[in-house]
Amino acid sequence: MSDQINRVVLAYSGGLDTSVILKWLQQEYQCEVVTFTADLGQGEELEPARKKAEMAGVKPEHIFIDDLREEFVRDFVFPMMRANALYEGTYLLGTSIARPLIAKRQIEIAKMVNADAVSHGATGKGNDQVRFELGYYALNPDIKVIAPWREWDLTSRTRLIEFAEAHQIPVAKDKRGESPFSTDANLLHTSSEGKVLEDPWEEVPDYVYSRTVNPEDAPDAPETITIDFERGDGVALNGEAMSPATLLTALNELGRKHGIGRLDLVENRFVGMKSRGMYETPGGTIYHAAHRGIEQITLDRGAAHLKDELAPRYAELIYNGFWFAPEREMLQAAIDHSQEKVTGTVRLKLYKGQATITGRKSPYSLYSEKVVTFEDDQGAYDQRDAAGFIKLNALRLRLLGRREA
Amino acid sequence: MSDQINRVVLAYSGGLDTSVILKWLQQEYQCEVVTFTADLGQGEELEPARKKAEMAGVKPEHIFIDDLREEFVRDFVFPMMRANALYEGTYLLGTSIARPLIAKRQIEIAKMVNADAVSHGATGKGNDQVRFELGYYALNPDIKVIAPWREWDLTSRTRLIEFAEAHQIPVAKDKRGESPFSTDANLLHTSSEGKVLEDPWEEVPDYVYSRTVNPEDAPDAPETITIDFERGDGVALNGEAMSPATLLTALNELGRKHGIGRLDLVENRFVGMKSRGMYETPGGTIYHAAHRGIEQITLDRGAAHLKDELAPRYAELIYNGFWFAPEREMLQAAIDHSQEKVTGTVRLKLYKGQATITGRKSPYSLYSEKVVTFEDDQGAYDQRDAAGFIKLNALRLRLLGRREA
Amino acid sequence: MSDQINRVVLAYSGGLDTSVILKWLQQEYQCEVVTFTADLGQGEELEPARKKAEMAGVKPEHIFIDDLREEFVRDFVFPMMRANALYEGTYLLGTSIARPLIAKRQIEIAKMVNADAVSHGATGKGNDQVRFELGYYALNPDIKVIAPWREWDLTSRTRLIEFAEAHQIPVAKDKRGESPFSTDANLLHTSSEGKVLEDPWEEVPDYVYSRTVNPEDAPDAPETITIDFERGDGVALNGEAMSPATLLTALNELGRKHGIGRLDLVENRFVGMKSRGMYETPGGTIYHAAHRGIEQITLDRGAAHLKDELAPRYAELIYNGFWFAPEREMLQAAIDHSQEKVTGTVRLKLYKGQATITGRKSPYSLYSEKVVTFEDDQGAYDQRDAAGFIKLNALRLRLLGRREA
Amino acid sequence: MSDQINRVVLAYSGGLDTSVILKWLQQEYQCEVVTFTADLGQGEELEPARKKAEMAGVKPEHIFIDDLREEFVRDFVFPMMRANALYEGTYLLGTSIARPLIAKRQIEIAKMVNADAVSHGATGKGNDQVRFELGYYALNPDIKVIAPWREWDLTSRTRLIEFAEAHQIPVAKDKRGESPFSTDANLLHTSSEGKVLEDPWEEVPDYVYSRTVNPEDAPDAPETITIDFERGDGVALNGEAMSPATLLTALNELGRKHGIGRLDLVENRFVGMKSRGMYETPGGTIYHAAHRGIEQITLDRGAAHLKDELAPRYAELIYNGFWFAPEREMLQAAIDHSQEKVTGTVRLKLYKGQATITGRKSPYSLYSEKVVTFEDDQGAYDQRDAAGFIKLNALRLRLLGRREA
Repeated sequence: MSDQINRVVLAYSGGLDTSVILKWLQQEYQCEVVTFTADLGQGEELEPARKKAEMAGVKPEHIFIDDLREEFVRDFVFPMMRANALYEGTYLLGTSIARPLIAKRQIEIAKMVNADAVSHGATGKGNDQVRFELGYYALNPDIKVIAPWREWDLTSRTRLIEFAEAHQIPVAKDKRGESPFSTDANLLHTSSEGKVLEDPWEEVPDYVYSRTVNPEDAPDAPETITIDFERGDGVALNGEAMSPATLLTALNELGRKHGIGRLDLVENRFVGMKSRGMYETPGGTIYHAAHRGIEQITLDRGAAHLKDELAPRYAELIYNGFWFAPEREMLQAAIDHSQEKVTGTVRLKLYKGQATITGRKSPYSLYSEKVVTFEDDQGAYDQRDAAGFIKLNALRLRLLGRREA
Repeated sequence: MSDQINRVVLAYSGGLDTSVILKWLQQEYQCEVVTFTADLGQGEELEPARKKAEMAGVKPEHIFIDDLREEFVRDFVFPMMRANALYEGTYLLGTSIARPLIAKRQIEIAKMVNADAVSHGATGKGNDQVRFELGYYALNPDIKVIAPWREWDLTSRTRLIEFAEAHQIPVAKDKRGESPFSTDANLLHTSSEGKVLEDPWEEVPDYVYSRTVNPEDAPDAPETITIDFERGDGVALNGEAMSPATLLTALNELGRKHGIGRLDLVENRFVGMKSRGMYETPGGTIYHAAHRGIEQITLDRGAAHLKDELAPRYAELIYNGFWFAPEREMLQAAIDHSQEKVTGTVRLKLYKGQATITGRKSPYSLYSEKVVTFEDDQGAYDQRDAAGFIKLNALRLRLLGRREA
Repeated sequence: MSDQINRVVLAYSGGLDTSVILKWLQQEYQCEVVTFTADLGQGEELEPARKKAEMAGVKPEHIFIDDLREEFVRDFVFPMMRANALYEGTYLLGTSIARPLIAKRQIEIAKMVNADAVSHGATGKGNDQVRFELGYYALNPDIKVIAPWREWDLTSRTRLIEFAEAHQIPVAKDKRGESPFSTDANLLHTSSEGKVLEDPWEEVPDYVYSRTVNPEDAPDAPETITIDFERGDGVALNGEAMSPATLLTALNELGRKHGIGRLDLVENRFVGMKSRGMYETPGGTIYHAAHRGIEQITLDRGAAHLKDELAPRYAELIYNGFWFAPEREMLQAAIDHSQEKVTGTVRLKLYKGQATITGRKSPYSLYSEKVVTFEDDQGAYDQRDAAGFIKLNALRLRLLGRREA
Repeated sequence: MSDQINRVVLAYSGGLDTSVILKWLQQEYQCEVVTFTADLGQGEELEPARKKAEMAGVKPEHIFIDDLREEFVRDFVFPMMRANALYEGTYLLGTSIARPLIAKRQIEIAKMVNADAVSHGATGKGNDQVRFELGYYALNPDIKVIAPWREWDLTSRTRLIEFAEAHQIPVAKDKRGESPFSTDANLLHTSSEGKVLEDPWEEVPDYVYSRTVNPEDAPDAPETITIDFERGDGVALNGEAMSPATLLTALNELGRKHGIGRLDLVENRFVGMKSRGMYETPGGTIYHAAHRGIEQITLDRGAAHLKDELAPRYAELIYNGFWFAPEREMLQAAIDHSQEKVTGTVRLKLYKGQATITGRKSPYSLYSEKVVTFEDDQGAYDQRDAAGFIKLNALRLRLLGRREA
């Protein structure tokens, strides 16, 4: 593989770092840079990115700005939520799940513009480089990948800013000092890492949070909502039908208001180190709880327990960047198979940081009041069956007990 | 196996149901009844049970009243908490974990008093009959088990009360009407099922809760606490050393005050039906969060992820009553092996229904600020290593990608 | 559920036991019996079963004799083989996999003839009763099930034969004495249990085997064959296209000749006891080896390892009778997803009890001689990547090592 | 980490490759080389390695030659065999399991001689580099690792030989041409890879095998042996007590004679590629079969099935080089817990490539002829219990069935 690059598609936010990368790629590789800026719901204007790219000499037809919000929620967030995936028991994978979509789109653009390389702004210590690059390679095994943070010598903030100034890249005033922490945002979540968060004993300062009010400042009155599901995916809020991204956006607003979805976590990165992150997943936290709620009455025990056993592995695969790997797809096939009747309505109470299920109903409910009742069930269940059930379940334990004696 | 019973050890609460059972056993089996009443922290006076047993003709030396609170927390609750066990993603197994201890003690007493049978008051529809009886059979394969609810004809509340009155068993006034729901309580939790809870769409009425204040009524100011762990088990609250049961009791009081640990769940019973339960696990919920917190910095990723994958199975085994089964012990051996360095301090904020980790520290922390920092790490981590790491992780995906093409 | 039965569909072999059951059902339940006799490749004439049924008074239109061999192999054996399923590491599940098909067909017939019950001849100690009845209930939750061996008082061979003679049921001479062992046969395998096999220390006598020659008597020269696979299923033998049942039949003949597929096993039954069985799976053993062989070059590691981890659970589900359970279907969905490119040819050597892979090739091979070669690979693989790969995989172990120090 | 090396411990076989490495290390790093040569049962004289090391200028006190055969079998092979570990369903991990022991001993020696580095002769494409280095780093996080094959420019056989000749390193005549394949050997197995084996469709030529006769040339009469186990480990052959290494050596001789333990495999390497290997594991194959045999009667179903589910993961960990990782140790703790009563005798028949169990007995057998018998069991098992057992196992399927309707 030659190192000669002709054209590279850069995942470009328009921020300082990727603006520096844009310039550095042009200089270092003497190549044409194509920028790709995605609207994943991060809540930033994208047109400034276009202007900055133009100013940096990118041809207009090489500036791609795509609204991927619906695709993101429909094809990535919702399938993941069907699995009730939690990384290390608590993290809703908000950053992890966005990377494969960005990678996929970069490779699509590379094909369109006949580029031979792709590039991203993730550092050499994090998980995102892995997620981007595994995505690239899976979708185009012959693509060249440029990861400037692993290559260049701009290894300190100061040198980065010097480079920016030397190349007429505008540096916002608040970027001149060391940024207090690093963030990532999309429709599902905002994450923060680094700086003030680096001591896991120190409490996360309130100013780090940007997507949710402090639960202590949330309304004193709870708010009750309903979410409707069809075949495992949310389709309506309070009875009003919504597209995937619209639904998540609305839930984000509710979560923000009630201070829902903050997480302070020390996690294990795929690259082998522990890091401390702060995550805000307002709508996703509500959605995740609701999905479990509707599954409670619509999933059979066998399906539910198998899902619970597979979920940690599935979450790990997404966290590690293996969205496009066959084993993730196999697990998805199993999970999706279980969701056919996951249809119905969940009612939740939102209150000062919590989303609590207060009711669930479904035309496909497997819950049978007739069977479970403490009252006379009129023969729906014969209690004497339990004796045999227990006897045969106990048989091997009794044989063991006799041996021990 | 003959049906002739000479002496039976009954798990006896002193309440109406087990008082009826006591009498029924004496009549039906013409046998001597030995009562066993355990203090598992359910918060009831036990001496009245002694008086009632005496009144029912049980010999004083056949009345066993044991304070098992420390054994319960130390040998059952804490080992389970080491696994971060959650049944169906959310339930902390408060009832399930108490049954094996009661069964174990009944079998010990049966041996002491030379009884040939044991009996319990669990119904034929629930999980508890399974948990009791698997415990009995595992510990004494030849014991006879009498499950009156599966045998007798007192199949309605009315007939039960008629039987009680016909046999001079005192019936509390509030038991005359149908009890609104059925409860179980111990130091870890209180559960409620049945009646008003039987419609899973209906919100749990506030009067069902007995162990926690409504989060809306909890203090408006958060409270910060610390829990110290040693080798995976809690040993101190706010720096004050405490025995297992003392610690859980103190956490219960904190949880009660802040409305922590309520759960409204539709779950899958081992006997094959779904049921809707309400659980309050105030101290256990705080403890569970804290244990995950200390593991975040003291467990290696390999150990942590293996634990996460094993936990659903482990929880299912406990829920289904297989505490004394070899596979539960095998999983426990694996889990316990991981806990040797799970030592340190977790700080939590308690506020209106939530226990949130705000910091964790440990002399055995695996978190390395030096490695993870965004700043210059002085060679602790070579970012170029990531390139090879990704390349080899991607290799199989690239080979796949080439095939697809 | 009333015990009144109008019409029952009996799984009827025409042998002594089910002939007695036929008569007993007519007498005991005063009901009409419908017989169902399946050709699953057990190698017996089925027309005699028709005559016997007629003689027993079954209406001609109520005698069902179906050749299910192709459906059996295509829809049951092959899907299971895609999983490489082995129960307890060694058993190819020949009996287990036939039961769901019989149950399914019985329920279909029950619907056609408007029967309200089904019946089978499996005993109360075995797994087959569970497999039949879980199938029945899954496919028709309201069907009534009659299991004569659990109900009647014909608890010894002598009484069974007395009943037969009293009702003009012909008893073959060799059935008068105690049969030396009990067998089950279908296109996939023959199993034997009981009697002479009941001591697991005693070697299985050679006369127990019926489907294979003793390896010591097999040809002294090995025989080489090829099997072609498409999408995970066998489609040709030695280049000749064959239907599923035809292929398995041909492999059985090869296996028989070379003494392949004998297994002496002590296994754990679902009903809680251990039993000792002898199995002969001649063609299935060859097929199983071949399927692993073709997967070796066509399955990605991620898919292959996930399959290996899921296979024991999948096998257990089939063994326990949960073919129609959602969790089996979920696993099947995952497994089937992996098989899309499992296409190619495997060459095997058959010799005195063994089927050994000697070569495999595929248009979808993921094996890359170019990458793996010890020779100069011309840059297909950069050995320096391995350094980073190892470094990052080692990072957590090093952090652990530093802690221990 | 500075690149300055003072003293390096080299895993040294005395062969051409490691002799070249020895010289190259001295030249390239200007450092003192300490050689370590292990007797793992590879069947070669070790004293020549001493002479060669001396000739290369290694100080006598820096030449370590250790007989590790007993430690190898007792602390590595047997614990692995307790798990019935098979990589990708078939491979007994003979190479994988030896690497951690070599790494461990190198690190011990490095400490003794105050060396700051270790080195090995594994290439940059294989698994062994990973296994060695993960071991090194786990046991000494600060050790420096030199992997010459990834560093030097001796990238072809020709250049290696030129280097050897230029430095007076004797080159055996048969090494001058390209060696037809690469091998590794120890007491457990011999592996071969490369060259003639690189086409997975080509049959492995007979001359590649060195540890076993061709089954076709094996004795025409079967041989029957017994192996005694205690707590999961083999302790005697044909009733004669033996140490672990002695037992494995004796089984190897039996396996060789009967042509047992050949495997032709295309496997997935940890570094991401597929490779084709040929393995001979004569004694290990017999031992593995025997261990399953004794477990059949001494392990409870719960323990056995949990082991079967954990085994693929456990095998993968060993294959990938994570012997010293916490998750491997956790699994080992679970597995070892299950082996306490795995004591008894297995009888096997060895015949032309196969080791077949023909009987097993144990003082701790859980097999109960009394329970399993088809004859009258005198109440040991009540067949009516099965009705309730099935009914409750079916309940969820019936509820599902009603929903589908």
